[in-house]
Amino acid sequence: MSEDFLKVALAAKEAAAELAPLPRAPKDAALRAIADALVARSAEIVAANALDVERAEQGGVQPYMIDRLRLDEGRVVAIAEAVRQVADLPDPVGEVVRGSTLPNGLELRQLRVPLGVIGIIYEGRPNVTVDAAALCLKSGNATLLRGSSSAYESNTVLVRIMQEALAGTEVPAGAVQLVPGQTRESVKELMRARGLVDVLIPRGGASLINSVVEESTVPVIETGVGNCHVYVDAEADLDLAVEILVNAKAQRPSVCNAAETFLVHADVADAFVPRALAALAEAGVTVHGDARIAAHGDGVVPAGEEDYLAEYLSLDIAAAVVDSLEEAVAHIRRYGSGHTDAIVTRSVTASRRFVALVDSAAVAVNASTRFTDGGEFGFGAEIGISTQKLHARGPMGLPELTSTKWVYIGEGHLRTGEGTVIASPAS
Amino acid sequence: MSEDFLKVALAAKEAAAELAPLPRAPKDAALRAIADALVARSAEIVAANALDVERAEQGGVQPYMIDRLRLDEGRVVAIAEAVRQVADLPDPVGEVVRGSTLPNGLELRQLRVPLGVIGIIYEGRPNVTVDAAALCLKSGNATLLRGSSSAYESNTVLVRIMQEALAGTEVPAGAVQLVPGQTRESVKELMRARGLVDVLIPRGGASLINSVVEESTVPVIETGVGNCHVYVDAEADLDLAVEILVNAKAQRPSVCNAAETFLVHADVADAFVPRALAALAEAGVTVHGDARIAAHGDGVVPAGEEDYLAEYLSLDIAAAVVDSLEEAVAHIRRYGSGHTDAIVTRSVTASRRFVALVDSAAVAVNASTRFTDGGEFGFGAEIGISTQKLHARGPMGLPELTSTKWVYIGEGHLRTGEGTVIASPAS
Repeated sequence: MSEDFLKVALAAKEAAAELAPLPRAPKDAALRAIADALVARSAEIVAANALDVERAEQGGVQPYMIDRLRLDEGRVVAIAEAVRQVADLPDPVGEVVRGSTLPNGLELRQLRVPLGVIGIIYEGRPNVTVDAAALCLKSGNATLLRGSSSAYESNTVLVRIMQEALAGTEVPAGAVQLVPGQTRESVKELMRARGLVDVLIPRGGASLINSVVEESTVPVIETGVGNCHVYVDAEADLDLAVEILVNAKAQRPSVCNAAETFLVHADVADAFVPRALAALAEAGVTVHGDARIAAHGDGVVPAGEEDYLAEYLSLDIAAAVVDSLEEAVAHIRRYGSGHTDAIVTRSVTASRRFVALVDSAAVAVNASTRFTDGGEFGFGAEIGISTQKLHARGPMGLPELTSTKWVYIGEGHLRTGEGTVIASPAS
Repeated sequence: MSEDFLKVALAAKEAAAELAPLPRAPKDAALRAIADALVARSAEIVAANALDVERAEQGGVQPYMIDRLRLDEGRVVAIAEAVRQVADLPDPVGEVVRGSTLPNGLELRQLRVPLGVIGIIYEGRPNVTVDAAALCLKSGNATLLRGSSSAYESNTVLVRIMQEALAGTEVPAGAVQLVPGQTRESVKELMRARGLVDVLIPRGGASLINSVVEESTVPVIETGVGNCHVYVDAEADLDLAVEILVNAKAQRPSVCNAAETFLVHADVADAFVPRALAALAEAGVTVHGDARIAAHGDGVVPAGEEDYLAEYLSLDIAAAVVDSLEEAVAHIRRYGSGHTDAIVTRSVTASRRFVALVDSAAVAVNASTRFTDGGEFGFGAEIGISTQKLHARGPMGLPELTSTKWVYIGEGHLRTGEGTVIASPAS
């Protein structure tokens, strides 16, 4: 482990210990100080960002990625506003999750506590630097940020400004740290920093997430790969089904909760598929379908295994006809990513069965997959959408950035083979 | 991956999918069928176990390990009784953890669902084979069991009996699987079975757990390493402190919630240490102390770093004098394993501070560390005590063997840039 990395990791760990017991007020004050500083120093941020953008342009980076990377005064103000919104959210730390007085009189409580140090590996969006740091700070955690090297100048200035803002508050400035260096080695150091980092959250494509899962000895929360399905049941209202399908695919195709495949029950395929193909074509969507889909339209591209596995994130969708709800579920279990899968049906029984059998973070009934989102769920903010089963599943808000601690209070409680004995206090 | 392993792993995965949607009644009936079969076939179990015991005796295995390994009719009856108790526990699956109607009318619920396939790597105690399978089955999970090779004959018969008992029930027989082979390779296969196994729970010593954490690509829940502390505060009732200390260390020294170090505030060291040394000596405990402890008694063995790091699991305890509560906390953070740490104090402020600053799964106030236990906490049963922060922390009961799933039900809910629109159903 390099000295540079060890230095920031130890600083984060020390800051986490100081930050963890702080109540809400000083944390909110610190977040507001960060927001103020970002606005006050926006020119500095935009100037640093211009260096990143220039480098990206010279490197021939795709325009949509440059758009994600670019900051202007307006975007900086929006980032600061998001930090103020995090300050307004309730503090999850200290919440009593469960509790009781045990039969022997011990008072038992399970409290929410911060996780400690959260490492975040993310794409070239400098707003994530501030969003992630703010959410972690609010939930009492220190952050070790490892953004894309394409945003290194921006991230360096953003972290410096946050640290300087914290210096005037009760929150230790070390609570927000940028992993030094832009090399692959620095990602590896983060993944091997067991004992220094409590959890690692990779945000980005499937290949990044897989490599972190493979190599990390730090516990990982996987986020964001979404191969979402819309299943049109034999009992579906076909008007609703067309609208839900088009919304799920085309309203914002680049996000993880957009639909990537639709499945339709054979009983309604003749009625549904031609209408679906027409509506999708009107929305600019290319359909990659099996032979039974292709029979209903000229523009259907033949689909292979890779289409059913694909997270297109574009105006493309895979499609297949299935002979039963169970076959739809089997398709989803085989090809899906466990993010969000929807059924359109009028049947209570079919909806119950689909909800019970589909093993995904979210199951939608007669609704677009696009609602799987921390904001839509009322969390106020999210750090990502977990597609794993351990710890957190689905949109992750502030409570998902916490652990718990058991506390029990007695008055001299001793455990014996025969049960509890209370020791006598001094007279 | 060997064909033998793949076969049982796929069988477990298939069984998990069938088991997950089952309600409580068929699962309880299956557990009772297992209990009946174990009792009816106890002679068969004892005979297989005798082979394991004979091999262990010939191999010169230590007597306490042979005692853990040995089964007789009485122990088999006790194992079956434990299975019946699991059947009597409430079913965590299907519990609505949170839920609300969103402002746009979507009905949102977060439900408990099984994790899927749980791999368990454990020591040479054949009762764990049945306990773990029963807890997992009750919580809707399939199990892949990898017990110690020292218990392979016993485990093979126990799993066969459970599978045969399940064959007459609604629970698929494949829900309980023994990992084939007794080699180290089979542990590795379990650790690399990402996509087939949802979570791995290693039970055993620190070295096993560390190697699993290092090598596993399957998410891991660490259990059971306990370097627990008792801190005797300046404001402690010293009578209580002596009794709590002796109970925490000596009532059952071989378990993970036994105390391994005591720390005492300098202000009360002169009054407390001589009494503590006398009481510990009377309980047969050897004290490994720093110079300020040793000043109070002849029998104190000098303590080094390794003593403060040790999980003795024996009638030994490390000890040190500290100058403040903060120094006690710093010692615990540095050397502890994050299991259970206790403070003895009359001061509300000191107890608040200790609870806030100690970063462990459980914090005890004026009570023995021995109470950190699923049974004592009222869980009815536990699969282990997690010392990690992700997913579950502290004693793990049935709810800790579950994940969650979000379900949202609409009537044609679409997401647009301006907010939710409800599609019109067919007229």
